[in-house]
Amino acid sequence: MAHPLSPVSPPLKDELDIVIPTIRNLDFLEMWRPFFQPYHLIIVQDGDPSKTIRVPEGFDYELYNRNDVNRVLGPKASCISFKDSACRCFGFLVSKKKYIFTIDDDCFVAKDPSGIEINALAQHIENLLKPSTPFFFNTLYDPFRDGADFVRGYPFSLREGAPTAISHGLWLNIPDYDAPTQLVKPLERNSSSDRYVDAVMTIPKGTIFPMCGMNLAFNRELIGPAMYFGLMGDGQPIGRYDDMWAGWCAKVICDHLSLGVKTGLPYIWHSKASNPFVNLKKEYKGIYWQEEIIPFFQSVALPKESTSVQKCYIELAKQVKQKLGPVDPYFQKLGDAMVTWIEAWDELNSTAKAQAQTQATASQPNGVKK
Amino acid sequence: MAHPLSPVSPPLKDELDIVIPTIRNLDFLEMWRPFFQPYHLIIVQDGDPSKTIRVPEGFDYELYNRNDVNRVLGPKASCISFKDSACRCFGFLVSKKKYIFTIDDDCFVAKDPSGIEINALAQHIENLLKPSTPFFFNTLYDPFRDGADFVRGYPFSLREGAPTAISHGLWLNIPDYDAPTQLVKPLERNSSSDRYVDAVMTIPKGTIFPMCGMNLAFNRELIGPAMYFGLMGDGQPIGRYDDMWAGWCAKVICDHLSLGVKTGLPYIWHSKASNPFVNLKKEYKGIYWQEEIIPFFQSVALPKESTSVQKCYIELAKQVKQKLGPVDPYFQKLGDAMVTWIEAWDELNSTAKAQAQTQATASQPNGVKK
Repeated sequence: MAHPLSPVSPPLKDELDIVIPTIRNLDFLEMWRPFFQPYHLIIVQDGDPSKTIRVPEGFDYELYNRNDVNRVLGPKASCISFKDSACRCFGFLVSKKKYIFTIDDDCFVAKDPSGIEINALAQHIENLLKPSTPFFFNTLYDPFRDGADFVRGYPFSLREGAPTAISHGLWLNIPDYDAPTQLVKPLERNSSSDRYVDAVMTIPKGTIFPMCGMNLAFNRELIGPAMYFGLMGDGQPIGRYDDMWAGWCAKVICDHLSLGVKTGLPYIWHSKASNPFVNLKKEYKGIYWQEEIIPFFQSVALPKESTSVQKCYIELAKQVKQKLGPVDPYFQKLGDAMVTWIEAWDELNSTAKAQAQTQATASQPNGVKK
Repeated sequence: MAHPLSPVSPPLKDELDIVIPTIRNLDFLEMWRPFFQPYHLIIVQDGDPSKTIRVPEGFDYELYNRNDVNRVLGPKASCISFKDSACRCFGFLVSKKKYIFTIDDDCFVAKDPSGIEINALAQHIENLLKPSTPFFFNTLYDPFRDGADFVRGYPFSLREGAPTAISHGLWLNIPDYDAPTQLVKPLERNSSSDRYVDAVMTIPKGTIFPMCGMNLAFNRELIGPAMYFGLMGDGQPIGRYDDMWAGWCAKVICDHLSLGVKTGLPYIWHSKASNPFVNLKKEYKGIYWQEEIIPFFQSVALPKESTSVQKCYIELAKQVKQKLGPVDPYFQKLGDAMVTWIEAWDELNSTAKAQAQTQATASQPNGVKK
């Protein structure tokens, strides 16, 4: 029998960080160990920085609490939310890798209808490494999947597709519903036997979508600076719209820069519904604001001069203040924070000095460098 | 044991016609008998009108051959293609029902992954009777399906959706590929075990798509006059773009009139691949013309005054002649035929006299009125 001389390295092992926002011990990683252990984790500890977060042994990670965020960003730390999973975007900022996968700590390994455990990270990587098809719709879903292709009538000039910037995964068990729907349908579950949809598809150019941050991957080089999760949680009038905000902004920028966004596989198993009454309190402003926010994003136009994600984002911040500012003063503050975020991004991502500084200051109570 | 006093009537039994274009005996109907027999069939016989098409006993149908088309439409018969399945749209014209399901005679009953035979017609009816969601993307696919809903971040003002005009079904076994892809991948098959996608989704507003006419249903009252399958086949420079043409036109009109278009379930089992060499001959002009046609449809704008499908279609015919006429003189002829089609539609669908005339002249060699 032939044995390979060296084991196959997990895909993108040295080019991808897993970002996890949390307030608790990360026991959920035990279930993910076969899939995540080869990768580097960036843990963003939310809430009380004096609390110690336990990370299972054998994982390679860096951990940032609020004190670290303040130390790394100084006054610019104001753009990072506190007591809200929106803080996860700090992990995107300090990563030095090309790809990010971010997952919530109440998400576990799902099984496909045949009972096989789904390696969500591997599917995201496949989604990100294969092109998207934002310019025309393919009725057989992802044409780059094995056994699939472009259907009759698909223009040949568009078959190379576009680079994929974002891979949006879905959830079995607890669906991602808003508080009113949670209240109305407390028992609704997405089960692998009847709600599993075996498809990945590109969201067409010109169509925005509700992006959930629970199970999400992206190409940081292509779209990282647009992955800002806004001002949510402590001291803010709104919560649970962090990922939505990032999704709206990122999609219009992807459309402008001819980048692709995919949704569908992989599924994760979302273990528990959050409290709908608490959620309603966090969401209620968002529920009526979104009636004005969505038309804004559906009609927003970025100028030709916006040739980079940063330039697009600064332009978007300006338009948010102009057009959404009249809805509520919050959007003035948010527009300013968007600019601060880009300043922080550029500061941490453009000089070697900044990189060294970030790395030196991260808390690593149990850090294991493999 | 309790017995129902009266059997449940099949859904839309008196409101739906099944339109079948064919050149051969319709033995394929035997497999569909449990699902189709309660419905009325409109058979459009293509090619030699002297040939007798055999229809299995017990089906309620009317059959039109080329002589009937000429008799019913007179000089306007020039808009109906000959020796091409595009002739199916004559059946849409003469139907008096609200809904149409059209299927090719090489399409059989498919099985879902659990081995259950799929009632394609029942799924189309469900798709047509439930709203679409063209104005915003739902990541959990059809929110009106049992066990599904709108996800967090979906604007509440858009949750009523839009009336569904078109339900586009898919194919297991032989996928709907163009000739070049058929030639390159002669053995590729869509099997129920690995390519079955259990989803129905709305194609977003502003996105056109490659509509296949093999397994298609629509609301004739909402979109019928846009379901013209163009000038194809005998005497024309192009074939196999009939359904594409109808799909491009119908989608931009649906978008303009705020109607929905769904794609996905149901699957049918497509039995045999057509000859790729013959297909290449039919398609080759379409393959390069579509590089100009798609951008035309992606950017076409209909004026506010176009408040009905007919008005939209006449406007579209004008723009086709203006903008695509320079590509090839064929588009001048096609634009004229589009106008003729609308004239024929209005003639046959607006007066009781015209209705009586159509019904009196249909060939019914084996017709069984149930």
